[in-house]
Amino acid sequence: MNSPMHKKMIEDKMISEQDFIKDPEIPGPTKEEIRCLVMCKSQVTQTDTVVDIGCGTGGLTSEFARRASKVYAVDKNPEAIKITQLNLEKFQLSDNVEVVEASAPQVLQDLPNFDILVVGGSSGKLHEIIREGYKKLNDKGRIIVTSILLETRVEAVKIFKELGLTPEVVEVAITRGRIMERGTMMKAQNPVTIISTPKI
Amino acid sequence: MNSPMHKKMIEDKMISEQDFIKDPEIPGPTKEEIRCLVMCKSQVTQTDTVVDIGCGTGGLTSEFARRASKVYAVDKNPEAIKITQLNLEKFQLSDNVEVVEASAPQVLQDLPNFDILVVGGSSGKLHEIIREGYKKLNDKGRIIVTSILLETRVEAVKIFKELGLTPEVVEVAITRGRIMERGTMMKAQNPVTIISTPKI
Amino acid sequence: MNSPMHKKMIEDKMISEQDFIKDPEIPGPTKEEIRCLVMCKSQVTQTDTVVDIGCGTGGLTSEFARRASKVYAVDKNPEAIKITQLNLEKFQLSDNVEVVEASAPQVLQDLPNFDILVVGGSSGKLHEIIREGYKKLNDKGRIIVTSILLETRVEAVKIFKELGLTPEVVEVAITRGRIMERGTMMKAQNPVTIISTPKI
Amino acid sequence: MNSPMHKKMIEDKMISEQDFIKDPEIPGPTKEEIRCLVMCKSQVTQTDTVVDIGCGTGGLTSEFARRASKVYAVDKNPEAIKITQLNLEKFQLSDNVEVVEASAPQVLQDLPNFDILVVGGSSGKLHEIIREGYKKLNDKGRIIVTSILLETRVEAVKIFKELGLTPEVVEVAITRGRIMERGTMMKAQNPVTIISTPKI
Repeated sequence: MNSPMHKKMIEDKMISEQDFIKDPEIPGPTKEEIRCLVMCKSQVTQTDTVVDIGCGTGGLTSEFARRASKVYAVDKNPEAIKITQLNLEKFQLSDNVEVVEASAPQVLQDLPNFDILVVGGSSGKLHEIIREGYKKLNDKGRIIVTSILLETRVEAVKIFKELGLTPEVVEVAITRGRIMERGTMMKAQNPVTIISTPKI
Repeated sequence: MNSPMHKKMIEDKMISEQDFIKDPEIPGPTKEEIRCLVMCKSQVTQTDTVVDIGCGTGGLTSEFARRASKVYAVDKNPEAIKITQLNLEKFQLSDNVEVVEASAPQVLQDLPNFDILVVGGSSGKLHEIIREGYKKLNDKGRIIVTSILLETRVEAVKIFKELGLTPEVVEVAITRGRIMERGTMMKAQNPVTIISTPKI
Repeated sequence: MNSPMHKKMIEDKMISEQDFIKDPEIPGPTKEEIRCLVMCKSQVTQTDTVVDIGCGTGGLTSEFARRASKVYAVDKNPEAIKITQLNLEKFQLSDNVEVVEASAPQVLQDLPNFDILVVGGSSGKLHEIIREGYKKLNDKGRIIVTSILLETRVEAVKIFKELGLTPEVVEVAITRGRIMERGTMMKAQNPVTIISTPKI
Repeated sequence: MNSPMHKKMIEDKMISEQDFIKDPEIPGPTKEEIRCLVMCKSQVTQTDTVVDIGCGTGGLTSEFARRASKVYAVDKNPEAIKITQLNLEKFQLSDNVEVVEASAPQVLQDLPNFDILVVGGSSGKLHEIIREGYKKLNDKGRIIVTSILLETRVEAVKIFKELGLTPEVVEVAITRGRIMERGTMMKAQNPVTIISTPKI
């Protein structure tokens, strides 16, 4: 994982969903296509520090770990913390990740400044998380919210507007074909909305 | 564009749609989110040789140029060839791209072996293109078809099955929010289906 | 249009989009599939009185006119009023429709009680329109909101919850195939969300 | 169920999914929104005779029974026949439905001419079913295919084109909001494509 070349070689493939250790109580891992799009929207580079709020199973954390300089994976649920750690170990991605069992937005005060804030779970505190996170963003930082609730999308757009930012809103509906004897059955995934800021 | 670090720094952001030079007669550029997902599905690395059949405006060609070792961009339409070249020049990505005005599948015989075959336009010759392309694939090569026609999806699945491959089929429906005074209006993009093989 | 039989015979087909007189400044007509689903969700019957707030081009008004006892079509835009009237005349559906140029929610006070309230345009007054409309609903009445804005969906759900109602939320994404020489091109329509109450 | 008025009063509401008796081995019932759209696309009227091939749980059969003169519900699976019968009895819709355990297209020869042919399951015989059904269509008859497989859509379009018909192709993706304490979670249904002919 040390040379850029090696890092490059692994990074264009997303980790397969079936390779993640899962816990029925913990949401995730974020589906492959959503992880792929979050990486593109985040414009992550090797020098970035990333904070992932609501890391769940560790899907996004694992992908950022392969692309960024440092990742702080935060969840208030100790089970989520445990399974994120297990996945990072499985994929040998623990080196540049700090897993933090804590509540947001409070935890943000204890973290160094960062380049990318990703919010996948906000427990009703989206407003506070984005406001506090915004203060700790480095120059050219970005904030990305992923949302499966109608309300979160609207709240995210509203907060970004209040901060004077024009977010990009992209709803992603992925339907996968299951190849069967009698044909290709289309199975819908639940839509995810990605709300992201331009470089701030 | 020489050091891996520099290449890395630009590669996680997709080129903006509005930055492409366009021609009303030529399809594309492939939308940002689709380009992002094609990059992930193709698992492109810095050592790969890519052939892009039906390069159109040069959207996918430009992205591959930033990630692969060598790209052959093929289109039978001289206007598509011209606009792809203009875009590569604009983005300073001409160095590792050869733009070829030719018809597929014939052109495949004149090209060296490759790692990734992308088919965005097949002019009714999908069967022949995949069969011929398959012969020229390097070990661990991949084939990706992007489709906006109902028929192409089914044809691609059928051909891959005949070749003994189990393709992955992913239909992508992206809806973008347009931030307006009175709210966020959701505007649908036409769905694109990405059919891709595992490493062969 | 008098006998139930005759009424029945026309009612299962939606009016074709191309048959509506249109005005580039006025939204609508609501797409055929959305009109069809709004009719189902509204559970409209021949004895119902319907109020359509924000009637626009008159798409939903025309369909309700064919199924309900009486329709009040309201819009604050005189151009919308004019084009709705033209369409009702074209389809010979003027008999049981009163077209009202007025602003909601004020207009609701001047209308008799009704069975179905449809809100397609609320000009930022959704809260007031639903609250006022709710007071004038007959027993077993229903409220239906159609929304193309992220914010309206959430607002509608919120208001219904405040009223102690559990709304049904259905997002509808229709993609139409355009039959062409080279295949069937899939063209996405913008998604519409239908938020409807059970019988109150 | 005798007077048009009564029929009218029930017909604008779709039967609720949870009201159907189900069998885990038998597909269906067709989701409410799809049933609603199939009714609209079929332009069913009270004088129509309908043949429903692959009736499964009886969802479409039940809706047609409420709107048409006569329905023949066909399935080759005896369990599907049984559960369709149970549902028709539950909804008191048996009077104008004949449930037929048989294989298509053979069964079509034994049926009288009809106005609407609906094909929800074709067991690989779509071509033969449509060709045979086409011969038995009354003047102004219609054929509707509902499809969850990529291949069926394309096959249906192809057959209709061969018969000189220009089908309408509509892919329907419904996402339902589940109202929860913490917000409205969007749950996607698998997309269904409805391919329908104009009046022939």
